[in-house]
Amino acid sequence: MGKGAVTRQKILEHAVDLARRVGLEGLSIGRLAEDLRLSKSGLFAHFRSKEKLQLQVLEAAAAQFVDAVVKPALTAARGEARLRALFERWLDWTELNARPGGCLFVAASVELDDRPGPVRERLVQLQKDWLDMLAQATRIAVEQGHFRSDADPEQLAHDAYGIALAYHHASRLLRDPKAKKRARQAIESRLRAARRTRRAS
Amino acid sequence: MGKGAVTRQKILEHAVDLARRVGLEGLSIGRLAEDLRLSKSGLFAHFRSKEKLQLQVLEAAAAQFVDAVVKPALTAARGEARLRALFERWLDWTELNARPGGCLFVAASVELDDRPGPVRERLVQLQKDWLDMLAQATRIAVEQGHFRSDADPEQLAHDAYGIALAYHHASRLLRDPKAKKRARQAIESRLRAARRTRRAS
Repeated sequence: MGKGAVTRQKILEHAVDLARRVGLEGLSIGRLAEDLRLSKSGLFAHFRSKEKLQLQVLEAAAAQFVDAVVKPALTAARGEARLRALFERWLDWTELNARPGGCLFVAASVELDDRPGPVRERLVQLQKDWLDMLAQATRIAVEQGHFRSDADPEQLAHDAYGIALAYHHASRLLRDPKAKKRARQAIESRLRAARRTRRAS
Repeated sequence: MGKGAVTRQKILEHAVDLARRVGLEGLSIGRLAEDLRLSKSGLFAHFRSKEKLQLQVLEAAAAQFVDAVVKPALTAARGEARLRALFERWLDWTELNARPGGCLFVAASVELDDRPGPVRERLVQLQKDWLDMLAQATRIAVEQGHFRSDADPEQLAHDAYGIALAYHHASRLLRDPKAKKRARQAIESRLRAARRTRRAS
């Protein structure tokens, strides 16, 4: 990376941390310039508008997520093991992002759900991409014979999302010491249900 | 109710709606006075401080939740039917609070998780009370023989919370037309697992 790219990277890392605390709407080029002791006009040259800054912060956070969650999980064997690795890394990500501010995507989901525009659209697309990746990992687990042939990949991805949101809520708001145990138990039950060859009801 | 109580009630209803949109931190006595065309000094006499206003808004929202979710569900038979009724009403509540702003408790959970103080403490207590109510309904379902004796009431309450959060996220942010179907399927699988007498793995 050239010097410009390194500077840009550093600015974006700080902006992601700031957005986790004050929200994407709370971000401002002025505040960033002050925090980083850079000139406001220089930062404007980098980002041009608050909306463009918000979009790049989302991209930077998504790249962090890929590095922390997706890439390491790809070393696990295809199928159930990989799905489990994705989930386990996702919990680590939530923990890593625990304080202050919490996960940017959780905060932005609540912040932007009523704010139409390109930032909301990009956020939705990123979340859908992640749900698709979980569904795709489930499909592979079906192909590999780890899961029942009628396991529903989209439903499993949706359920895993709920388990991760409950973990975020229980660990951050409720400070529940059992939060991680509960998350793991929930995902184990869910994977067991996908594995089960016969339905016992 | 006397005239003062009616006025107070109306103010709080408006304040709850406002807080769902702008957050509890975004609430202000000045903004409320402007919206309702009341005198700011009169409102200060009612609420005395922003923090006291936030606390009363939480209580008002909790009372709405009890009226909309808890009370109607209590007409269902004790046990699994009641637990199912609580969950179904909870989805209705989320739908009812869909736009604009979403559920106050979801928004406040993200807003306040890093803000220590009496408002956060009250929010945590309200959420714990609700989790306890779900756990208690599960315990009754065990006593009635609807659920396995080793069904874990706290885990089931935690899991139901995740399913409701995923519903909020899928319906509000992702605008997923299958959001409700997915939520129902998730809770049905979860209740089935609690019912099952033998573990098939």
